[in-house]
Amino acid sequence: MSKPSVVRGTRDFGPEKMVRRNYIFGTIKSVFEKFGFQPIETPAMENLSTLMGKYGEEGDQLLFKILNSGNFSEKIGQPDLDEGYKKLTTKISEKGLKYDLTVPFARYVVMNRNDLAMPFKRYQIQPVWRGDRPQKGRYREFYQCDADVVGTDSLICESEIVLMIHEVMQKLGINFMLKINNRKILTGLSEAIGAVGEEGTLAVAIDKLDKIGKEKVLEELAEKGFSADSLSKLDPIFEISGTNQEKFLKLEELFQNSEIGQKGIAELKQVWTYLSAFGVSENNIELDITLARGLSYYTGAIFEVKALDVQIGSITGGGRYDNLTGTFGVPGLSGVGISFGVDRIYDVMEELNLFPENQSVTTKLLFCHFGENELNYALPLLQKARLVGVNTEVYPDVSKIKKQLDYADKKKIQFVCIIGSDEMNTGILTLKNMISGEQEKLNFEDILSKLG
Amino acid sequence: MSKPSVVRGTRDFGPEKMVRRNYIFGTIKSVFEKFGFQPIETPAMENLSTLMGKYGEEGDQLLFKILNSGNFSEKIGQPDLDEGYKKLTTKISEKGLKYDLTVPFARYVVMNRNDLAMPFKRYQIQPVWRGDRPQKGRYREFYQCDADVVGTDSLICESEIVLMIHEVMQKLGINFMLKINNRKILTGLSEAIGAVGEEGTLAVAIDKLDKIGKEKVLEELAEKGFSADSLSKLDPIFEISGTNQEKFLKLEELFQNSEIGQKGIAELKQVWTYLSAFGVSENNIELDITLARGLSYYTGAIFEVKALDVQIGSITGGGRYDNLTGTFGVPGLSGVGISFGVDRIYDVMEELNLFPENQSVTTKLLFCHFGENELNYALPLLQKARLVGVNTEVYPDVSKIKKQLDYADKKKIQFVCIIGSDEMNTGILTLKNMISGEQEKLNFEDILSKLG
Repeated sequence: MSKPSVVRGTRDFGPEKMVRRNYIFGTIKSVFEKFGFQPIETPAMENLSTLMGKYGEEGDQLLFKILNSGNFSEKIGQPDLDEGYKKLTTKISEKGLKYDLTVPFARYVVMNRNDLAMPFKRYQIQPVWRGDRPQKGRYREFYQCDADVVGTDSLICESEIVLMIHEVMQKLGINFMLKINNRKILTGLSEAIGAVGEEGTLAVAIDKLDKIGKEKVLEELAEKGFSADSLSKLDPIFEISGTNQEKFLKLEELFQNSEIGQKGIAELKQVWTYLSAFGVSENNIELDITLARGLSYYTGAIFEVKALDVQIGSITGGGRYDNLTGTFGVPGLSGVGISFGVDRIYDVMEELNLFPENQSVTTKLLFCHFGENELNYALPLLQKARLVGVNTEVYPDVSKIKKQLDYADKKKIQFVCIIGSDEMNTGILTLKNMISGEQEKLNFEDILSKLG
Repeated sequence: MSKPSVVRGTRDFGPEKMVRRNYIFGTIKSVFEKFGFQPIETPAMENLSTLMGKYGEEGDQLLFKILNSGNFSEKIGQPDLDEGYKKLTTKISEKGLKYDLTVPFARYVVMNRNDLAMPFKRYQIQPVWRGDRPQKGRYREFYQCDADVVGTDSLICESEIVLMIHEVMQKLGINFMLKINNRKILTGLSEAIGAVGEEGTLAVAIDKLDKIGKEKVLEELAEKGFSADSLSKLDPIFEISGTNQEKFLKLEELFQNSEIGQKGIAELKQVWTYLSAFGVSENNIELDITLARGLSYYTGAIFEVKALDVQIGSITGGGRYDNLTGTFGVPGLSGVGISFGVDRIYDVMEELNLFPENQSVTTKLLFCHFGENELNYALPLLQKARLVGVNTEVYPDVSKIKKQLDYADKKKIQFVCIIGSDEMNTGILTLKNMISGEQEKLNFEDILSKLG
């Protein structure tokens, strides 16, 4: 018999991890709800017709596809095999596991648009699946934690996303830097350097500035056909520095002839204005014109959050998109959203010891006993403790006290009552605090008022 | 472009359903935790080697199987097709979606047994997937809500499961009948009627007593080869009635020569004794010797809960199994568990109007406004309201007031503040209660202390 294992790239979550993950989810949820977002859930399985073509060719490959039920190969012959696995897939699989929460959300909006309060603000906390090569911090099954508003292009929404990021990070105790850019600034940039329509290539390259440095970025762009003139115009842009307001000024100068670039600046400045009306300090916010994040998708603001005290990728990201539902035949719905990367946030909090103590979901009081009679004596007490809301257990077997105390230890149970014949005779019980070692002799009512 | 749809047998859950489902989950969770159960989660995907052979041949067929990533058909040829889809499946699929929470739990216990506090009490609330034909109330993706104790055969655990069922149903407001049986009673029954080793066939037949009646049950058993003598002995057993204690007496008489039957009675009587020590009334509990529920699996107690005021199948079920982990090479772990059928509980509660009102996760206060200036005026107020924990929104676009109020209506927002020039000049705002229609003129501090 082979040893059982989990599927590569997937994980079990035991009680301790569950509690910590739920702490993160709970924090984010409460912030989402405070800002008027409502929860929805969509199925794990979606029709492949819903999923395919939404994530680029690589994404299509990374989708987990579900074999059709029943005799799926009945009509398959050698010619089908000869056509290769991609074509074959379409003949034996109609369903896949969702790859993100955004596409199912778009499907949901299209299917329910007549019943939704528009603008529709929803949040969604569910697992998604990707057939990526598993590696440290990258899983094949992981939770996403998204909030989106669709049906408005008001920049109030962008500024509220910034507020939510602030509140979540502050509640979790994570020092962070929020980088903001705007797709229109990237477009403006390509216009300003005389490479109209090349913002995609430009963005992919300058997105790597942090990692590979200016020289390599310029090299890559030269290879991709950017003229020497364009590159010489780009060079000083890398040097744009100073406060956010100073950057705005320099960009406005640069974009004198780029209408779209000007629009990008205007949008971001409006977000800054709202933030100042909201009373948010901009200490944690940085305009970063090299931020691109899945450029093909975003049409306005682009967000990315980095944790300051830990070397790790971005822990949160998002942006505005103008055509969420166009792919399902409903054009004109603009939206803006944010996705918290719970696995990375977990790692950051663990490394920095940010989880609050005593968060375990566990029993508060365990009855131990010297035998069957003592166990029976405990039963009505157990019930009384539960009645006042105390999580309580009795060790269910007649066993050595040491074994029973080991159980309490392992489960991090704080209080133990050991029932022996003395206790049964007098009704005075010894309450032992397993953490401090303190012992107190009390009747059961007093124990309840102490723990209840 | 085809209209998007959900996969047949799966569902989206919008904000209203989410809140109601979370109410059920939350109620069950709090009871589980009160009894010392801790949460775990396992992945949606399991290796097929973990899942196959655990649910019978039909179960194997109903598993959703995931196509291997990459060029899965590279090594497949006509001979593989000729062997049929079942063999072919093993060559192109290694993973499946979990079918229940019990088998993944068993895998988890085996993989982590050295670290677990034994007896291990876990609960798990997650979706499972089954390729059943979808029909009313039966889905291909649905949540299970399980609690199990493994590593002890103490009947305290059975009685605590009864307590948990009582508490959950009582909290949800559902009138119920809990039916209890014991696998050993079914075995005893087959011995008592001279059909040793035939308890499987016997149980499958008498499980249908409710639905098809006594005559049909006897007919079925005759067809399966039960002798006339056996059937004539079985006949009076159907008539066993009276209180639980009267039934125990009659069965003890019947099982004079069946050691295992006697053991079954003794176990159940012990559970009853514990329940009375716990102070539980047995009004909602009925010994039902025809209850079988997946007999091949259970070895001791068998539970089933029916809602009394609605025509619907069982809403909760469970029992004791003695070899949970044997299939993974770790014998000797006895366990007992319960599974709450959340979809049916939902239907019962909806039909009987049992959901508490005002449970929606929504905004408490919406700022409406007559234009850009008024919107800007609202921003710092918005922030103040959130600071004291009030879920607050501002309508993000400049729109007609009617449209803004429609939004509040649709989202069931209770309070609305409309900002106009008067309000901006005086700082006195009108707080409108959208439910009662009441209006009050207050300054913002007073509004906050009213809503906070």
